[in-house]
Amino acid sequence: MVDPGNKPVVLLDETKCKRNLLRMATKAQKLGLTLRPHFKTHQSADVGQWCRELDIQKCTVSSVMMAGYFAKCGWKDITIAFPFNILEWEDIKALAQRVQLQVTITSMETLHPLLERTDARLGVFLKIELGTFRTGFDPDNPAQISEAIRLLSQHSKYTFRGFLGHAGHSYDCRSPECIQHVHNESRNILTSLKERFIEAHKDLILSPGDTPTCSMADDWDGIDEIRPGNFVYYDVTQYVIGACGLDDIAVALAAPVVAKHPERNTIIVYGGGIHLSKDRIMWRGHMIYGLPTLLTESAWEVPDLESFVSGISQEHGVIQATAKLYEKVSVGDHIAILPVHSCMMCDLMKSVKVLQTGTVLQMMTTY
Amino acid sequence: MVDPGNKPVVLLDETKCKRNLLRMATKAQKLGLTLRPHFKTHQSADVGQWCRELDIQKCTVSSVMMAGYFAKCGWKDITIAFPFNILEWEDIKALAQRVQLQVTITSMETLHPLLERTDARLGVFLKIELGTFRTGFDPDNPAQISEAIRLLSQHSKYTFRGFLGHAGHSYDCRSPECIQHVHNESRNILTSLKERFIEAHKDLILSPGDTPTCSMADDWDGIDEIRPGNFVYYDVTQYVIGACGLDDIAVALAAPVVAKHPERNTIIVYGGGIHLSKDRIMWRGHMIYGLPTLLTESAWEVPDLESFVSGISQEHGVIQATAKLYEKVSVGDHIAILPVHSCMMCDLMKSVKVLQTGTVLQMMTTY
Repeated sequence: MVDPGNKPVVLLDETKCKRNLLRMATKAQKLGLTLRPHFKTHQSADVGQWCRELDIQKCTVSSVMMAGYFAKCGWKDITIAFPFNILEWEDIKALAQRVQLQVTITSMETLHPLLERTDARLGVFLKIELGTFRTGFDPDNPAQISEAIRLLSQHSKYTFRGFLGHAGHSYDCRSPECIQHVHNESRNILTSLKERFIEAHKDLILSPGDTPTCSMADDWDGIDEIRPGNFVYYDVTQYVIGACGLDDIAVALAAPVVAKHPERNTIIVYGGGIHLSKDRIMWRGHMIYGLPTLLTESAWEVPDLESFVSGISQEHGVIQATAKLYEKVSVGDHIAILPVHSCMMCDLMKSVKVLQTGTVLQMMTTY
Repeated sequence: MVDPGNKPVVLLDETKCKRNLLRMATKAQKLGLTLRPHFKTHQSADVGQWCRELDIQKCTVSSVMMAGYFAKCGWKDITIAFPFNILEWEDIKALAQRVQLQVTITSMETLHPLLERTDARLGVFLKIELGTFRTGFDPDNPAQISEAIRLLSQHSKYTFRGFLGHAGHSYDCRSPECIQHVHNESRNILTSLKERFIEAHKDLILSPGDTPTCSMADDWDGIDEIRPGNFVYYDVTQYVIGACGLDDIAVALAAPVVAKHPERNTIIVYGGGIHLSKDRIMWRGHMIYGLPTLLTESAWEVPDLESFVSGISQEHGVIQATAKLYEKVSVGDHIAILPVHSCMMCDLMKSVKVLQTGTVLQMMTTY
């Protein structure tokens, strides 16, 4: 068994992770979709390498800094799926000289400062609002979209690449029907735009793809590229949505047990908001911060589904345990916690230890 | 004006921070209380130094690692106000040779492994459950507490130091009356224990002290030491509780504006859950993640109270702005966001830039 050490640590089940990658790559290939996975979940050169072994050559990132990290790791085609930040122009310019870089424009206000620059060659996606109401062009305002494309096309250094979308409201779904509904709506919005603009822009592509819809929907006609990220590790949220099985969750926080309270069946662990994040989800009538389970010789047990992380503060986690889990655990043991949100946990923890080998994966460090 | 750079950065108003420190130090001195501030909020050698300039010589930390950091910074008397983690014994032992170290025992299960060790000299606090139901000895079970003290007192290397408490449920208060009620209850619990055990243990002290009660309550008879942490920076949560004024909040995230949506008056910033944390609070009927305002020449404006951070994802923040704020802000500007929880934000950001000097404070780095 891998040594989880004396402080909270993220354990990664390489077998599950590679199975998740292979499943998504196979699905994309079968459907004729380019898989451009979002690397913000793992932020790891090593996991990136596992992608390359499946012939994945393009990636998505959520910051210029992350683009720089993966460029250094040898990635040659990178999309920054975060609104273009004009303040980082110098870094973007430098990166664009080394790799094929796509930036994302999400509102007219952001397009104008981009158009004023002339010293970098970039691919440009227009982000389309699909119903999440975070950011993106309004699909019901095709005149504005048309104007944005016209301005981009006039620019000598920019190539309009197509429409990017993120149906983040799929995270509010709790049934396959809901996911299918979000997917249908998103696809209709995007394919309508494609029909409208493809004649003048033969190479434009459609690039949506959150993990829930990419995991669950099978009809992707008209779509060219998908960009799921979380699927590489999955988490309790994806399980609640229905996007994965419990057995697909590839990461867990191993947290030392530091107290027990028999009067309440609570177990206190060293593992709090600075490790798991404060992301939470409704689970069987409770707001929870993770699902606890026992470590085994090779990985962790399937959680009992009745025990849960009921509260967290900066460094503490409180586990409301079944009598059975409570009895099996002693102070000084570790509890494995399946996270509510694996992306946030990995960003916080900055390192991941592989169960099968004990290797600590290379990850982007903080700035 | 200090340059906030091109990525999210935490700005610190040194004047406000030092005023917060002075106010608490003056109050403690007036009331005859030892102020042993919790350093988990700032995690900074420099802010620690500001404390020393007010003749504060003792500190509280939330991890063995943090104790090690502040020991290196010259702190000689440190309490780890987190349940004793037997797995870190070697580090605790090493630290105990260099500084006066107190550990915290929160349940009988944790006491036993401590008692088995004999190779470190430690002060030991018993943590008492004050109503938060996170961890601590049940004050209604004095027989168990008595037994714990007896076992500790028999040990040749340990000194029973007294009772430690954290009335974390004060964070659920929204009125001075509620805070006073939590404070009275906590103080009664602790002073009752003191009365019971002081005869046999003349030197035992009572050490409670969350920021809300320390900021708001004035009657501390019987209490010896307080350990507030958040007061050094305060935040929107403390303002909502009533523990500080808006003008006492000493930190803000400066976040670049990356998109604007006039149809909804939303402003999208580079500043999300990995910067602010996912901590949130109810504010005028909305669940919010921070209060946005404008940077000024020397600091930031008082927020308008009607604009708020309505949503965050990994790197995005969505600001629901008043028409006035919306109009004043352009893509490429910065917005200052007063955080819901300053401790979590600073832990995430790992560095803090001082408004008055442009200096980046030294902080404990991640492990």
